[in-house]
Amino acid sequence: MTRQALPRVITITTDFGHKGPFAAVMKGVILSRLPGADVVDLVHNIPPHWPPEAGFWIVHAYRYFPAGTVHIAIVDPAPGNETQIIIAEKNEHIFLAPDNGLLAALFDQPGSNAIYRLEPDKLAQFGIHDPSPTFHGRDIYAPLAAEIAAGNCRPAQLGDATGEWTPAWVDKPTRNVDRVDGIVITVDPFGNLITNIEQQLIEGFAEPIVHIGGHALGIETTYATSNPGDYLALINSFGVVEIARAEGSAAAGLGSQRGAPVSVSDGLVA
Amino acid sequence: MTRQALPRVITITTDFGHKGPFAAVMKGVILSRLPGADVVDLVHNIPPHWPPEAGFWIVHAYRYFPAGTVHIAIVDPAPGNETQIIIAEKNEHIFLAPDNGLLAALFDQPGSNAIYRLEPDKLAQFGIHDPSPTFHGRDIYAPLAAEIAAGNCRPAQLGDATGEWTPAWVDKPTRNVDRVDGIVITVDPFGNLITNIEQQLIEGFAEPIVHIGGHALGIETTYATSNPGDYLALINSFGVVEIARAEGSAAAGLGSQRGAPVSVSDGLVA
Amino acid sequence: MTRQALPRVITITTDFGHKGPFAAVMKGVILSRLPGADVVDLVHNIPPHWPPEAGFWIVHAYRYFPAGTVHIAIVDPAPGNETQIIIAEKNEHIFLAPDNGLLAALFDQPGSNAIYRLEPDKLAQFGIHDPSPTFHGRDIYAPLAAEIAAGNCRPAQLGDATGEWTPAWVDKPTRNVDRVDGIVITVDPFGNLITNIEQQLIEGFAEPIVHIGGHALGIETTYATSNPGDYLALINSFGVVEIARAEGSAAAGLGSQRGAPVSVSDGLVA
Repeated sequence: MTRQALPRVITITTDFGHKGPFAAVMKGVILSRLPGADVVDLVHNIPPHWPPEAGFWIVHAYRYFPAGTVHIAIVDPAPGNETQIIIAEKNEHIFLAPDNGLLAALFDQPGSNAIYRLEPDKLAQFGIHDPSPTFHGRDIYAPLAAEIAAGNCRPAQLGDATGEWTPAWVDKPTRNVDRVDGIVITVDPFGNLITNIEQQLIEGFAEPIVHIGGHALGIETTYATSNPGDYLALINSFGVVEIARAEGSAAAGLGSQRGAPVSVSDGLVA
Repeated sequence: MTRQALPRVITITTDFGHKGPFAAVMKGVILSRLPGADVVDLVHNIPPHWPPEAGFWIVHAYRYFPAGTVHIAIVDPAPGNETQIIIAEKNEHIFLAPDNGLLAALFDQPGSNAIYRLEPDKLAQFGIHDPSPTFHGRDIYAPLAAEIAAGNCRPAQLGDATGEWTPAWVDKPTRNVDRVDGIVITVDPFGNLITNIEQQLIEGFAEPIVHIGGHALGIETTYATSNPGDYLALINSFGVVEIARAEGSAAAGLGSQRGAPVSVSDGLVA
Repeated sequence: MTRQALPRVITITTDFGHKGPFAAVMKGVILSRLPGADVVDLVHNIPPHWPPEAGFWIVHAYRYFPAGTVHIAIVDPAPGNETQIIIAEKNEHIFLAPDNGLLAALFDQPGSNAIYRLEPDKLAQFGIHDPSPTFHGRDIYAPLAAEIAAGNCRPAQLGDATGEWTPAWVDKPTRNVDRVDGIVITVDPFGNLITNIEQQLIEGFAEPIVHIGGHALGIETTYATSNPGDYLALINSFGVVEIARAEGSAAAGLGSQRGAPVSVSDGLVA
């Protein structure tokens, strides 16, 4: 990509919530180094210290941003604990995150991975000095993302390439001949239960049946084909199995939350 | 408007809340098609599936944005249920919303309406293909807003003009000689009760008295002329009747919420 | 600064919360006057009508934005009560806020202050007319910030210079030979208790001990050196004393909130 083609877009994903100026000062640092950058808050309400949900959203959201976008994701149960920082390139996007499993789901996706482990002594040449021990988002991630988005720094300049990373905290769904087992990975604002079961995993099923909380649900095309109050399952707009309740909240109705087990069986086989 | 004069501003109003990356991926889609667009979150905490509040805020907020701004408003109790999409031009702004009554209050405002009903087969010529059935915000509204804001697409290219639309869910205030009846349409962060009674409706009243929850209140100019704890009514900065409590929350104090009846009488007549 | 060097960055700090379009219409006004401005929400969850927390965050956050940034801060217990508006220049940043003590902590910081009191009749020459009595954020602060950020208006054109301002609501920490007394000024999203005790105040202490809620805590370098559940104190990334709980919430654990007393003693002296 030539420099003038760079989109200058940076996304930020954290568990900071919407209190305080924490994401805002990261934007200030970015705008100080890259005037006119477009900084987009991707998600800030990741449950504190739970990287898997951040990884899920990064995997499913990044492709809607322009090629060349730099994605910062910071959810770290051990900030200041010298968690190493990973800089990765994949499918023409760049990702910065702690090496704590957050990006493991991304690296499992199709496409090659170019992964670098940040060597802190490389930061000085890009004008990044004396980071505080407790706010790497502001003092390392934000300036680094700005320098990369500006075209001043390539990931390969920041450390050695690596083929190893901390594995994901959440197991990938298991697939048997006629059954896939996964979990609810997040709950959306309407109470829909979003699972980590990708549609590819059940594409061979003649009649997929979704099992959750004692319910067995066929897969509908949209929310609207069911009667109010009915539970339904569908492949949602991010390509994963979702359990919803027509004009209601499946989370409230089923008492199911993040981490709840979900399985899909093939009704014809069973 | 010439192309270079386009403001490239797009606002987004939804009932998505501030959880998850839903509004963010819409921004990603917009920035992918229109680099440098200024995307402003107008309101995201519309009560789920209640279009009237979205319509109220669109009507009262749009004029503070530059002429040529494209306003997306998505609050749809039946997403995926083939609700038609309306593209409208009014007073030099463009509006995209489901045809479910959301924009009815806007169309009632002074000024001419140019209203088009989206024909889905028109989307392909603007590079919009295969929208998911459940996230039209990301797959139709966002790319369409970007193409319109970029000057690549005019509303009239998207479907036939229409003079019919789904009516508003909330009745307009009724006006008799000496009395206007309306409702609380929303509650602001300070607990002020904002009604749908426009100041024009009571301008002929010699001594307007606002009635809510057993209280009869004269109309003050500002919050500050009352003693702490007093209830007061005023014409707020958006030109509608509002009930407040000095240094307190009228909503909490009166137990009044969205939908509560409010009337204004003319004290001299009564 | 020459006009083309202006960063066109404006930050907004309020107690509006994240409900309603109140900050959004301010952005609309800014973008109408200064196309392409970068408007950053600094903090919106200041406790209603409590200026000290807004002042604390302004003081500790502004330096992360580019020189020339215009910072709007509106937390006013008496809106419409003719609180005067202050326009100040300090360390190459510009600040707009009500004269209610909000900026007092800023003016106490090192660096010279150029402080002007807005004369409302100066607004017309910058095209600002007929502000509503109840939403000065939209009708005065936002357009004024845009004109200043655009280079169309210098603070000195808006009113007479002044050396007087309303003092801060919260006392500065008191320092004795071997003890500093302050308060918790805000609580972060993780439940960390952030105090108004700057590190400079305790730099001479041989062995600083932080006292809160019956606990006496040494000062650690990061969150990560403690065992889960332990309380700890540290100098946080904004340079003030903070009380945290490793992998937990100090606010919940100690029952301490905004305003709670905190002291630091010198363990060697005691």
